[in-house]
Amino acid sequence: MRPKHQLESAEFDLEGFYSNVRKYTEKLCEPLEVEDYIPQPIEDVSPPKWNIAHTTWFFEEMILKSFADDYTEFDAEFGFLFNSYYNTIGERTQRNQRGDLSRPTVKDVFAYRKYVDAEMRALFEQELPQKVKDLIVLGLNHEQQHQELFLTDLKYTLSVNPTYPVYRENFALVEKGEIDSGNFIEVEGGIKEIGFDGDGFHFDNELGRHKAYLEDFEICESLVSNADFVEFINDGGYRDHRLWHSEGWDWVNSYQISSPLYWTKKESNWNIFTLGGLRKLIPENPACHISFYEASAFAEWKGMRLPTEFEWEAASDRFDWGLRWEWTGSAYLPYPNFSTAKGAVGEYNGKFMINQMVLRGSSVATSPGHSRKSYRNFFHPQLRWQFTGLRLAK
Amino acid sequence: MRPKHQLESAEFDLEGFYSNVRKYTEKLCEPLEVEDYIPQPIEDVSPPKWNIAHTTWFFEEMILKSFADDYTEFDAEFGFLFNSYYNTIGERTQRNQRGDLSRPTVKDVFAYRKYVDAEMRALFEQELPQKVKDLIVLGLNHEQQHQELFLTDLKYTLSVNPTYPVYRENFALVEKGEIDSGNFIEVEGGIKEIGFDGDGFHFDNELGRHKAYLEDFEICESLVSNADFVEFINDGGYRDHRLWHSEGWDWVNSYQISSPLYWTKKESNWNIFTLGGLRKLIPENPACHISFYEASAFAEWKGMRLPTEFEWEAASDRFDWGLRWEWTGSAYLPYPNFSTAKGAVGEYNGKFMINQMVLRGSSVATSPGHSRKSYRNFFHPQLRWQFTGLRLAK
Amino acid sequence: MRPKHQLESAEFDLEGFYSNVRKYTEKLCEPLEVEDYIPQPIEDVSPPKWNIAHTTWFFEEMILKSFADDYTEFDAEFGFLFNSYYNTIGERTQRNQRGDLSRPTVKDVFAYRKYVDAEMRALFEQELPQKVKDLIVLGLNHEQQHQELFLTDLKYTLSVNPTYPVYRENFALVEKGEIDSGNFIEVEGGIKEIGFDGDGFHFDNELGRHKAYLEDFEICESLVSNADFVEFINDGGYRDHRLWHSEGWDWVNSYQISSPLYWTKKESNWNIFTLGGLRKLIPENPACHISFYEASAFAEWKGMRLPTEFEWEAASDRFDWGLRWEWTGSAYLPYPNFSTAKGAVGEYNGKFMINQMVLRGSSVATSPGHSRKSYRNFFHPQLRWQFTGLRLAK
Amino acid sequence: MRPKHQLESAEFDLEGFYSNVRKYTEKLCEPLEVEDYIPQPIEDVSPPKWNIAHTTWFFEEMILKSFADDYTEFDAEFGFLFNSYYNTIGERTQRNQRGDLSRPTVKDVFAYRKYVDAEMRALFEQELPQKVKDLIVLGLNHEQQHQELFLTDLKYTLSVNPTYPVYRENFALVEKGEIDSGNFIEVEGGIKEIGFDGDGFHFDNELGRHKAYLEDFEICESLVSNADFVEFINDGGYRDHRLWHSEGWDWVNSYQISSPLYWTKKESNWNIFTLGGLRKLIPENPACHISFYEASAFAEWKGMRLPTEFEWEAASDRFDWGLRWEWTGSAYLPYPNFSTAKGAVGEYNGKFMINQMVLRGSSVATSPGHSRKSYRNFFHPQLRWQFTGLRLAK
Repeated sequence: MRPKHQLESAEFDLEGFYSNVRKYTEKLCEPLEVEDYIPQPIEDVSPPKWNIAHTTWFFEEMILKSFADDYTEFDAEFGFLFNSYYNTIGERTQRNQRGDLSRPTVKDVFAYRKYVDAEMRALFEQELPQKVKDLIVLGLNHEQQHQELFLTDLKYTLSVNPTYPVYRENFALVEKGEIDSGNFIEVEGGIKEIGFDGDGFHFDNELGRHKAYLEDFEICESLVSNADFVEFINDGGYRDHRLWHSEGWDWVNSYQISSPLYWTKKESNWNIFTLGGLRKLIPENPACHISFYEASAFAEWKGMRLPTEFEWEAASDRFDWGLRWEWTGSAYLPYPNFSTAKGAVGEYNGKFMINQMVLRGSSVATSPGHSRKSYRNFFHPQLRWQFTGLRLAK
Repeated sequence: MRPKHQLESAEFDLEGFYSNVRKYTEKLCEPLEVEDYIPQPIEDVSPPKWNIAHTTWFFEEMILKSFADDYTEFDAEFGFLFNSYYNTIGERTQRNQRGDLSRPTVKDVFAYRKYVDAEMRALFEQELPQKVKDLIVLGLNHEQQHQELFLTDLKYTLSVNPTYPVYRENFALVEKGEIDSGNFIEVEGGIKEIGFDGDGFHFDNELGRHKAYLEDFEICESLVSNADFVEFINDGGYRDHRLWHSEGWDWVNSYQISSPLYWTKKESNWNIFTLGGLRKLIPENPACHISFYEASAFAEWKGMRLPTEFEWEAASDRFDWGLRWEWTGSAYLPYPNFSTAKGAVGEYNGKFMINQMVLRGSSVATSPGHSRKSYRNFFHPQLRWQFTGLRLAK
Repeated sequence: MRPKHQLESAEFDLEGFYSNVRKYTEKLCEPLEVEDYIPQPIEDVSPPKWNIAHTTWFFEEMILKSFADDYTEFDAEFGFLFNSYYNTIGERTQRNQRGDLSRPTVKDVFAYRKYVDAEMRALFEQELPQKVKDLIVLGLNHEQQHQELFLTDLKYTLSVNPTYPVYRENFALVEKGEIDSGNFIEVEGGIKEIGFDGDGFHFDNELGRHKAYLEDFEICESLVSNADFVEFINDGGYRDHRLWHSEGWDWVNSYQISSPLYWTKKESNWNIFTLGGLRKLIPENPACHISFYEASAFAEWKGMRLPTEFEWEAASDRFDWGLRWEWTGSAYLPYPNFSTAKGAVGEYNGKFMINQMVLRGSSVATSPGHSRKSYRNFFHPQLRWQFTGLRLAK
Repeated sequence: MRPKHQLESAEFDLEGFYSNVRKYTEKLCEPLEVEDYIPQPIEDVSPPKWNIAHTTWFFEEMILKSFADDYTEFDAEFGFLFNSYYNTIGERTQRNQRGDLSRPTVKDVFAYRKYVDAEMRALFEQELPQKVKDLIVLGLNHEQQHQELFLTDLKYTLSVNPTYPVYRENFALVEKGEIDSGNFIEVEGGIKEIGFDGDGFHFDNELGRHKAYLEDFEICESLVSNADFVEFINDGGYRDHRLWHSEGWDWVNSYQISSPLYWTKKESNWNIFTLGGLRKLIPENPACHISFYEASAFAEWKGMRLPTEFEWEAASDRFDWGLRWEWTGSAYLPYPNFSTAKGAVGEYNGKFMINQMVLRGSSVATSPGHSRKSYRNFFHPQLRWQFTGLRLAK
């Protein structure tokens, strides 16, 4: 949000960055049929049409309307249709009604993207103040976040279809393996510096940089694997209340949870639904699509715990990460000296700082270049449709 | 269900009837974009894709699979996807999840229709037993019912879109007028014969033909108009508990109902959403999209009542009907000697005979040839997305 | 509501009637502990404290406030607390919050009864206009209805207590037997006179007296017994969708219904909870505590049906009734020429005429003298906490 | 949970402590009518009967059954009836059905208390191992927690009664005032020791004692007052989305929150419901019965924030506390090295460590001797029926 040195340097190619991010979204759309752009089976999951229109809306609403000369908006109604949660800007489509809208058509939405891209290119011709450049960079990072949501939301929507449609036959997501060493790294405690410290882009929730005192701890070099999770299931982990938070236990029972999301058993073999269709579970892969409750119960079963986000960040240079978002034992709260930006942009992060848990790392669905060790992702403890796994600590 | 003389006569052109009905469905689809086939904003409203696949499924499931030689089904999964409510046939898509399915595509569904139509044409080459012919006629009447639902469901879906999309610019539904004479016809009581008595198609719920004793009554020549309903609104009809059933009053307050469905006030003028887009309310048109609760409260306000379905049928030759389904004061119950057919077809009507009210007549959205005076339509008392109005009696 | 000859005769002892009914309520209270007066486990079930205060409130609100000279109300807040559903009179305790009120105490409520009784006795000293006498008779019939509710509500409340408390050890309800002849009576059809025709009290919903045409029918001399229902259960009746209304089938599955209310199986024996505690099921007793859905599914299983309320009334002199309310196949609707009284009393019946089914007869819990063949009871089709059974027709 | 030095010393009078705590509960009951022991208007609020039986059950279940020779339980069904949430011990009354139970009577429950007290006194005659003594101390602290709940739950139940019953006319809760200096104390940052460090009783969630690094901060000497909150209301605080968490804003709108709980406006004056009945709001009193959302929005409005629980503990010797529980900005999470006890006692705290916020201090309803600076109370962010207020930090 407050980009520094790197983004202010002469060499930084903002227009190139813009062009790459916007093209990447369109590449994600290639395998889709028109019909795939529409459904929203649950409130958390947005339709692709909404995702690609909303990211475009961000540039129109936050940048073009304010900083482009004589800007004519593409369609006056799009502001209402594609606002997500910015109260400052006004009324919007109810979140659970995004899937009710057949119009504008997919074609219209792509025309909207083209129109805004052309206007943005025109804007790049001018000398832009740093503040506008910063907003553009924010808009592109916002679009990268929605690129990941595009994939996770689409995966959910395809998964509820009894015909198990394939997004991309050889989509990489299913094949990523991992050497499961299981070694624990010993980390010495003391005062650690936490929060963003580079010279590139970062979100406001990664600030302010501050000190935290950590005890000595150990953290596992590798993620928990599918094989580990099968063992947990076979040992009755989903039926032993002692392993679960009270609300987690209610969740398990209310929804009759007995495995991670997208797992189905055919005869005695586990299958998982992937963006490449229904596949056999690969035991060596890191476990995925688990809730915080499941992550925490698994750790309890192992006699261990989840790392805090501070431990994770402090140790993150000593292990590989990036395949799965990793649940931490930390609630999503402001850092000391956190402050909210003025205006609509200030609604980006702070107002969600309640009842959510922090995830660190990134996932196979995270867009290239959109990860760093200070990145704070966050979700409610029962949610599982992101590519979420866990790493043990003790 | 048990067609008689007319349908058994040599002159009755079943293949022509089949062809006409199936083509009419496709004609209804013409103005649609691919996206329009998908959304299901509420459980009662099915997506067009589902409607056109389900009517096709009826012919495949009930006829081709049983009576065509060596029939190969189009796609084994369609049976699950497009079954509506036939428990006898097996599992099916949950009714509220019809809008979650992007696949099969619209193109696939039209290919399904073509495939089944070709197989049906092949079947017509053969000499068919009367029982099969009867089932085909049932299937075509079933499709005609879904043609009306196609329009009413689509209207609802388009109505939740803030851009008020137009289905057909000059669609007739908005323009149908009526001379509002307000004359009451006096009908002499006595024993009347009720139920189907012709020699054509009819549903099982129109049988058995039986006697009912009616007192003398009066029934209005014309339907209640929009102007009448505006008067009711202006007189505080929606805020006077004395006019409402107890459950109707709860409904008014829970959903803050203050006008018929699709009415919106801009400044001091009433507009209504139609399949031709948002239009000015035409006072002379018959009131439409009202629930049984509203119909009943209106009648109470007038110091009158709704006719029973028996009164309606007995007097129906003496007034014009067909623009709006007309709520009656009769609950949907079996006639004396009603009996349910064996097998899946037996689930057509009988199992819905609770908590619903009978509507008589037909509407502007009813398919040509699909109405008769003994026809019994039925809906829950709070529903309004059909073209429903009322006629007063006393 | 519009009492005639009998009540107007000089011999009719209104004060004696008042005294008897009021005392009977107090007799029902005798076995109760103070604590029993408070809980309301579900919305349909009112606490005893509310029942005995509300019936008293009726006399204060409808009679004393209007017709007693210089009447001083017992407590200004009781009007709000103990109004049931009379919108005309004003705001009231939410129906589902009757069990939240610990005050006024039970002692206070009995003081309230004493106070009103004394004032009523004073009123009887005067010469009362027939209109007031009629209202008093209505109030006493109203109290008799609440006497039955007192027992059925209390039974429900005690039943949710895992200790199965006993109301009266040798309470008659469990012991009523019946000769289960199973004979069917043949009744000749034709025009029948339906509705109240005596010279005593009756409710407005029993009017107007009118003609109805009935086909020939047969009706069973005896009620369906517990043994019959055990057979239905053992034959899989609760698991065969073909027997049920669609909404009934949803109800069975949502609530996992597999027997009448209050039945529990210990090892292989059926027990039932009664006002005399938990008892062994007596096979010869008439089945009880079944919903309309269950009654209808049972009849379907037998290849028969429920009688209509008109058939029941027409044949009611030819069989014994009075142990169980009997579900009929008739929806609760106004009779021809039904009209609603002006003012609060007009809210007594008419506004409930939707989505309910008629029951005829009376039950073991009905107060002495409070039954007649034209009496129309009514409940929603899923409700079972009344003493409800069924009689077959064909 | 693991009491140390003080409780192990020879001088510590365990029997006296037992006697005092148990008597205090009975003193709290004195003003109650039998009826007051029963209702449970919302799930969070337990009936007094349940509170006083459950605390007794703890001694029977955890101590007498295991450690008293030949102990005969008072009533075999009480184990089921009065278990709260201990899955380890078995089935129990559903939490939302505690108010449905009229039996056992209040008299029975007091007999149960007497019986258990006598058995406990007999146990005190023996030489008890330290482990049993520790469990008894835990049981007494548990009862003290329920003493506070007794008052807060009772307050809620009386508040829903339109007659505003009085618990104790001159009950202190309404009258506690406070000098509202508004001074901010400057606290120097650095490494602080956090967690229990004394030699008396403490709960497991106060351990392990550990280091935390704090930045410099300021914390207010006094609590936010009613006058402050009136100002917040008058400035539109409840209608300005920018001040609220996203979920807080949903909560405000769903429940139409516009003031703290128990506040009602009569004409232009604020009244509050207290255990002494309805009273005028005293501006100088500390604000009370606010949710975390309200506390946080108020702080945002002031341009400040809530203290973390670590800041609070580190500074707690420098200000007065004890009138209101104080919301902190800390989520309820385990301290480093937190571990759960084996068996049912292990369900005391750990399983609630999700989606709740920490409160520090104590309240006017907290039992004498039941507070210390390391005490961690916790509730969901929307709850307000405890005596909760806030202190500002910056």
